[in-house]
Amino acid sequence: MSRREARNSGAKPLGPIPAGFDGIDGELAIGGHRASDLAEDAGDTPLFVYSRALLDARMAALRAAMPDKLALHYAVKANPHPDVIRHMARLVDGFDLASGGELAILQDVGIDGAHISFAGPGKRPREIRAAIEAGVTLNCESETEAARALEIGAELGIQPKVAVRVNPDFDMRGSGMKMGGGAKQFGLDAERVPALIAKLIAGGADWRGLHIYTGSQALEAEAVIETQGHVLDLAARIACEVGRPCPALNLGGGFGIPYFAGNEPLDITAIGAALGERFDNLPEELAETDMAIELGRYLVGEAGVYLARIVDRKESHGETFLITDGGLHHQLAASGNFGAVVRRNYPVAIASKFTAQPVEIVNVVGCLCTPLDRLADKAELPRADVGDLVAVFCAGAYGASASPMHFLGQGPAIELLV
Amino acid sequence: MSRREARNSGAKPLGPIPAGFDGIDGELAIGGHRASDLAEDAGDTPLFVYSRALLDARMAALRAAMPDKLALHYAVKANPHPDVIRHMARLVDGFDLASGGELAILQDVGIDGAHISFAGPGKRPREIRAAIEAGVTLNCESETEAARALEIGAELGIQPKVAVRVNPDFDMRGSGMKMGGGAKQFGLDAERVPALIAKLIAGGADWRGLHIYTGSQALEAEAVIETQGHVLDLAARIACEVGRPCPALNLGGGFGIPYFAGNEPLDITAIGAALGERFDNLPEELAETDMAIELGRYLVGEAGVYLARIVDRKESHGETFLITDGGLHHQLAASGNFGAVVRRNYPVAIASKFTAQPVEIVNVVGCLCTPLDRLADKAELPRADVGDLVAVFCAGAYGASASPMHFLGQGPAIELLV
Repeated sequence: MSRREARNSGAKPLGPIPAGFDGIDGELAIGGHRASDLAEDAGDTPLFVYSRALLDARMAALRAAMPDKLALHYAVKANPHPDVIRHMARLVDGFDLASGGELAILQDVGIDGAHISFAGPGKRPREIRAAIEAGVTLNCESETEAARALEIGAELGIQPKVAVRVNPDFDMRGSGMKMGGGAKQFGLDAERVPALIAKLIAGGADWRGLHIYTGSQALEAEAVIETQGHVLDLAARIACEVGRPCPALNLGGGFGIPYFAGNEPLDITAIGAALGERFDNLPEELAETDMAIELGRYLVGEAGVYLARIVDRKESHGETFLITDGGLHHQLAASGNFGAVVRRNYPVAIASKFTAQPVEIVNVVGCLCTPLDRLADKAELPRADVGDLVAVFCAGAYGASASPMHFLGQGPAIELLV
Repeated sequence: MSRREARNSGAKPLGPIPAGFDGIDGELAIGGHRASDLAEDAGDTPLFVYSRALLDARMAALRAAMPDKLALHYAVKANPHPDVIRHMARLVDGFDLASGGELAILQDVGIDGAHISFAGPGKRPREIRAAIEAGVTLNCESETEAARALEIGAELGIQPKVAVRVNPDFDMRGSGMKMGGGAKQFGLDAERVPALIAKLIAGGADWRGLHIYTGSQALEAEAVIETQGHVLDLAARIACEVGRPCPALNLGGGFGIPYFAGNEPLDITAIGAALGERFDNLPEELAETDMAIELGRYLVGEAGVYLARIVDRKESHGETFLITDGGLHHQLAASGNFGAVVRRNYPVAIASKFTAQPVEIVNVVGCLCTPLDRLADKAELPRADVGDLVAVFCAGAYGASASPMHFLGQGPAIELLV
């Protein structure tokens, strides 16, 4: 069936398969390993496979595009698997955390607190304590947190390293999820930031600058460039009001990846060039500032594939269903149930027939007893049967850890770094 | 602030707090225990508290309303906590499972397979094997599954108990989630069912009748009555075609609970009366049939409360945020991110000030670093500060096990049956 015929017969488009995946003997290969071999090595399905080569390639491209001055941090929340963190530790300049639980993972892996910062509303006192003890930089999100950091630092006899997270007056145009602009639980409204910094410095904290995060999953370079410009302006304004140069600035992240049909990859070359130009013309307050961006999804998202096995193939009222042993308990976002208003198909393929031509329109579903458990809706795919493997791409970020793994008694998927 | 003023100033309504919750010294009490005492006993927050008394009361009301002939089954997926299952084992006539993982939980608790049935698309061969070994009734969802059951039964030398799940030609009007009508991954299209039953019987299976599930979260008695009527008609028609009386019929479930403002409780008295009338006039094929319904959410949903502690209280652009140590990692559905098209507020209260008058409009959020993590949006509540406890009601079903507990390094909540 040609693409045109499929469209005419009601197929819904699939997202674009990321670059870097080949076929070996007709099968999907990840990091040079056939999908079927990976499943056999793992001993069971479903499984997540993360590719070292793709992580390396992404980081290399980013390094090449971004100004040397810019430190690249990994936002652990995107994929906290210890093997992934161990690998990223060789590639990035720092790690950003969202909880004490993530700090514990990094400590197990042996990451030095000097390379870690911790952001997130609602940090508990015990999390603040653990962070200060570990020498982590706290991105303080409120006056309450600042007071706690000073108090706990005093108790411990450790000077707390504290940056202030700013709730900016703008958001990132076109971002998938806005985290600035208007009333937010994140950070401190910009106009209250200088007073809090003064209080932190007076209280004996080591002021580590500013953290300004405006949104995530942006695919338009122009929007990112515009926002980073605003962030630099805001940071300079705040530092000027504080009357001190800004020691460090986390410019946020928000670089998106293409999940859906029609999405184009983000033009990081354009972003890097614009940032380089800004860095060449920094105001005095930012001239010596350590600049960083924190990226999660962008670094690891496209390097991961979720493989599930087809357990049943059935017809119902003229539609075909491929029922897999995976599902929304590992792929909540791909099922359309996490932050999506309208469900659209992720990039999905028949891994065991990766290079075959599409010949039919099928629904790929999970094994959960709920109609929400759909991995691909009316997808045009090669013929697949019981035993074949299905691949869901863009599974490297917000997959395993962002899904209800215990739902309906299922449990975790296997995770492999290859 | 009066209700009217609150509305005028942009408050969004909260869902109705279920019956059975009192105040003790102004605090929320669950099963006679103050919320603060429960949190202290648990040793940490957040926690889920499930009330034995409310489980008992719900089951007693249901028994009183339903015909004696109707067996009441518990759908484990709603809440698989072992203590809840142990308690339900004293109250219900059977259990319905959705996975081998749930079977393992029931076996640990010591539930006899004779009282268990297992439905769900995509059962793996090893799950079918475990079920047959345990004497569980399989609700077979496809020709492939039927063949597998016969084959595995033969291998084991055990006659498999097999019912057939029917994908009916109708759905439940007004149900929150439709599981019948049109092309579905569940069950077998009705017209193919008699042939499959003949094959199962010829293959030596113990045919255990039919399973017909049409939808969930229904709040209109009329819709349930109408659907149950259709289910009985369909079962009779199928049994007639098979040429044998139907040994057992699982009429489905789908009884809903009020989550949102304006929802009214389901009129189970009307449903029971209508069902009784139908049972008094059953056709020959169903005269000796064991009748059952399976309920999950309806039995346990309103008996559970999620308690989280306020870690921060902050203002941003004129709005107040209460930031708790809980969030969507335990309360995905309450955050509006699971199966909801439009986010609406669940019933939420300040547990430590349960009987106090609402005086302000606040946003109650979780501790996750994502704008999706919202437990109540512009809610009119009593004044609450750091240390106060927030209660999210209707947390007994699809809470702990249906949420991404490991998201952002958080981990599970404590669960208590009191």
